Order: sequence, then structure tokens, then C-alpha cells
Amino acid sequence: MAVYTDISEVELGALLKEYDVGELLSYKGIAEGTENSNYLLHTSRAAFILTLYEQRVERSDLPFFLGLMEHLAQHGVNCPLPVRRNDGAVVSEIAGRPAALITFLEGMWLRKPAPQHCREVGRAMAGMHLAARGFEPTRANALTVGDWRPLWEKAKPRANEVEEELEAEVEADLADLAQGWPADLPTGVIHADLFPDNVFFLGDRVSGIIDFYFACNDLLAYDIATCLNAWCFEKDGSYNLTKGTALLEGYQSVRPLDAAEIKALPLLARGSALRFMLTRLYDWLTVSDGALVNKRDPMEYVRRLRFHRQISSPSEYGIGLK
Amino acid sequence: MAVYTDISEVELGALLKEYDVGELLSYKGIAEGTENSNYLLHTSRAAFILTLYEQRVERSDLPFFLGLMEHLAQHGVNCPLPVRRNDGAVVSEIAGRPAALITFLEGMWLRKPAPQHCREVGRAMAGMHLAARGFEPTRANALTVGDWRPLWEKAKPRANEVEEELEAEVEADLADLAQGWPADLPTGVIHADLFPDNVFFLGDRVSGIIDFYFACNDLLAYDIATCLNAWCFEKDGSYNLTKGTALLEGYQSVRPLDAAEIKALPLLARGSALRFMLTRLYDWLTVSDGALVNKRDPMEYVRRLRFHRQISSPSEYGIGLK
Repeated sequence: MAVYTDISEVELGALLKEYDVGELLSYKGIAEGTENSNYLLHTSRAAFILTLYEQRVERSDLPFFLGLMEHLAQHGVNCPLPVRRNDGAVVSEIAGRPAALITFLEGMWLRKPAPQHCREVGRAMAGMHLAARGFEPTRANALTVGDWRPLWEKAKPRANEVEEELEAEVEADLADLAQGWPADLPTGVIHADLFPDNVFFLGDRVSGIIDFYFACNDLLAYDIATCLNAWCFEKDGSYNLTKGTALLEGYQSVRPLDAAEIKALPLLARGSALRFMLTRLYDWLTVSDGALVNKRDPMEYVRRLRFHRQISSPSEYGIGLK
Repeated sequence: MAVYTDISEVELGALLKEYDVGELLSYKGIAEGTENSNYLLHTSRAAFILTLYEQRVERSDLPFFLGLMEHLAQHGVNCPLPVRRNDGAVVSEIAGRPAALITFLEGMWLRKPAPQHCREVGRAMAGMHLAARGFEPTRANALTVGDWRPLWEKAKPRANEVEEELEAEVEADLADLAQGWPADLPTGVIHADLFPDNVFFLGDRVSGIIDFYFACNDLLAYDIATCLNAWCFEKDGSYNLTKGTALLEGYQSVRPLDAAEIKALPLLARGSALRFMLTRLYDWLTVSDGALVNKRDPMEYVRRLRFHRQISSPSEYGIGLK
């Protein structure tokens, strides 16, 4: 369930006077996104999403996120287009929070993606990586290898409450990852949170990629690693090789990986699994049960970590070595 | 925040095959309603609401609620129209819950209604009372005078935690109401929960009345009493006579009250305030803080009760005695 800031029809009406979007007909708080409040608006012209940025999003990052969406939308990616205000700006303020109005994308996210959807998301991700190449602003990844140790230190004292021996496992991961993390792979803008709930489908086709609020400049292959974790494991923790193969083939049909990227996949997948395990673990231990922030089980990602540790070759993910 | 049952695009797609509503384009869980889960759907034809009935709604009451909405919509009331399935039924099942698809009404509910809105809601309520006259099924009010004592007995042992002396106040109310409750006033179908969040406006006009899940057969003037409580008090607990006058005038412009109804208003308003105080008190004391059910402060209604107790004439609500 989303964090939720209520807004009145009076303040929303006043805000919409700053835009050329027609007359407001309705607005509903929607249960989407875990970091922000979102409203689905109908106006006399079209449907829109109004996002209110809650505390977890830095205001200073908004020009990067919204500028990226605008750039991608203008370069053929199906993603929301931020609507410019009459004064040219894209960031507004409502209910004491920064906010942006973006176009509404039809489509459904898939609770149970099949292999053909994994192929499509691979293709769409590669297309996004290519389309972002002309985008000039940059943003460092705030949740990459150097950031994991400080996050871990906050969770470590209670980690074994979640799983016996977790502390020792994670310490070993952190050491391996810090030592082996690749530095010379192709970089660019990555989505960094391309989970199924951020990809809409109509039929078997991707109709939209949303929620760019973790986007940053980093290794392109790290985005693939995150997708392998997010799309290709089953509920029981097993890796679905058919889905992984489809995702990697879909990606490579648009942007072939080089040998170094392929070789790095197991370590990147392990790093990405650790990143999501750590943020989940931290929320699990610190967010109260009554809060409206979604708490997700860190154990799902502990199991992925264990899988990636025992990988001896990238081919086990379903990719041919060059 | 609404109770929220997640549904997958696969089960929703299968459900919609039972209806002639076009192709599904999107669906979003919306933060509306306190008793049910609601999704806003876009199809290739129109927007719809899919309501999943959670445990607080009796399945056996659904034909009454949905039949009433259909009757009202066909008799000129702006309310959602239940969409019939291809097999003629209106109740479906999804995610283990009974569900209904209804038309989507544009409009916004007002966080701060002004007197002209109170006049409009009075007019709309009277129109609804008249339009419901040909509706034959009946449903007893499950939360009227005889039901308050059993509800109170469950909350009483801890009532003074909420407010000192509350127990003595409520006991006196219950005695007065049981003794004085009118039996011979005009009856019909009432909404019984016509709070601002159940009435949509476009501009200053009512565009829709929603959420008929407390509707029942009872004294028509009791619906007015509930609206006086819900629309005409300020945040500080004071009664806004201008709003009350407007609401009553709006109602009477469509359906004039008879002398007995006017005379009964203070007692009905007191009874209605007690009814909402009791359900809020019960939830306040029994629902855990982490639950997704909205907990509303019972003290708002304790203050209304105190106001109604000291009324000596219906004219104090803004209505002329005949």
C-alpha cells in the first residue's frame, strides 16, 4: 500500500490552473508505488498521474528523474511524459510536497510474468539503455557497492533475528563484492528498480515503463542483473532458466553484451540481490507494522544470494559465453 | 485507507469475459471506501469501478444494494449503475470475494463543503428518497435504535478510556432514545451513510451519490439527521446554522417535511450521532492500529451528541416550525 497524503479538490484545482490539461473531472488516490503518493486524475482531455514525492525522494534529484522521463519519451520509450506547467517548469508543490503531473499509461503489471514477458522486458530495457544515451545530466547510484556496508552496519546487530548465520553470510558477500566489483564495463543510465510492478503490458507487449525514481548512471549490465532477480525466480526461490534465457536473449536482440559484461553477470546478480536484501532487511527491522510503507520479506533475497554464490559460469543464467 | 485485496490481471481478465464492456486497458486499486476494496478500471469503452466486498458486507444483502442502485440510476439519480453480466447476474466472484462491476462517476467529494453544497446534497437526498419509492425489496436498518444497546454493551467496559463520564452520558441517551424514538413518520429507502465522501460534485452540482452499502428501509427524516451531523458541523464541533438551513431548505424544495418529522429532528439527530459514535467507539477500541480499516475519532460524535442534547426546538437547526 502506498504512502498517502490526502489533497483537497480545492488545492488540486488551484494546482491544475498552472497547466494546460483541461478541466478536472475526478481524482483517486491509487495503491501504487511504495515511495510516493499517487493520484489518478481524469480531466476533460485525458488521464494523468499526479505524484507527490514523499520523504524518501530527494527534491534535488527530481530534475534528473523527470528530465530522463521526458528524454526517453521523446526517444521512443513508452514511459510517462512529465507535463510542463504554463511557466515551463515540471516540478510543482502541493500539500507541502514537491509534485509532478505525468501522462497516464494504460497497461497492467504482471503478477506472474511468463517467459515471453521476460523476453519483452529484456528488449524494452535494452531499448531504454540505448535511448538514454543522449541524456546529459548524471546521477550517481546511491545504492551500489560502496553503499552496502554502511546500510549493513545499521541492520547487522539484529540480522540474525531474521535468519540464523545471516551475519556471516553477508560479511563474506560484502568482502567478495568489494574486491571483485567490475569497474570497466559499459555504463549509462539504468532504471535500477525494474521490477514487474514497474512494467505495464497490453497483451504480450510492453506498454509502459514507470517509476524512474531510482534511475542513475551505473553499469548497464547491473540493470540486467536486477531484472534477473526480479523476473526470473519462482515463489519457491528456484531460478527459472527459461525465463532467464528469454530475458537475456530479448536484451541482446537489441543491445548485445560484450564478453566482460557476460563474465561479470554472476557477481552483478549477487550484488543486486544483496542490495535489495539489505534495503528490505533494514525496513523489516525498523519500519513499524502500522506504517503504510510496504514491508517485503528480506528472505526472498537471501535465497537469491545463496543461488548466485554457487554459480560457476554465466551460462547457468541462460547466456552463451563468447 | 481502504481494505485491499490484490487481484491479478489474469483473474480480472477472466472475470471481464463475463461482461460486455470492451477490452481491459488498466486497473488500479483506489484508496476509497472503508468497507470494501475498489479498483478503477479503464476498458476500451469506458471507466468502471470493480468493488470486492470484504467481510463487513453481507453477501445476502448485495441484491438489495445493487438492485437499489440500478433502480435509482434508472429513475434519474446520479449513482453508479451495476453492469449486468452476459448471464444477467450482477454479482460475480473474484479472489474469493463477491464482487460487482459498476459504472464510474466523474466528480470529486468535498473536503470542505460550503453552504451551497449542503443545499445541493439536501436536494439530491430528497430526490433519491422520491426516486426510491417504486423499489420493492426491503432491508431492515441493522444499526438503528434497537441495535445500539448491544453495540454499546461491547464498548461500555472501556468507554471511559476515551472520555471520562462517557458511560453515564450514553446510558442516559440510550434510555431517552429508546423511549422517545418516533414510530409513525414517513418511511422509505434511506442511504444511511450520506457523508461528504459519498457525494461527488462537478462545480457546485452533485454529479454522483455512491456507496449504498448501508442503505435500508427506515424513517426518511433519519437520513436528514445523519446529513446534518455529517455536513453541518465544523472541525471545532460547532454547528453551522447557515449550512444546516441550506441543507434543510434544499431537501424541502424537493420533498417538504411534515410537522411530525420536523418535531422529531432533534431526537433523530441525537440518535444518528449516537449510532456513528458507537461504531467509531467500537472500532477505536477493537481494531488494531496496523489494520487497514480507517479508525475515526469517536469524540467528534460525542461532541455532536452534547450539542443535540441541549436543543430545545427544531428551529435551532435552521428549519421553520409549521
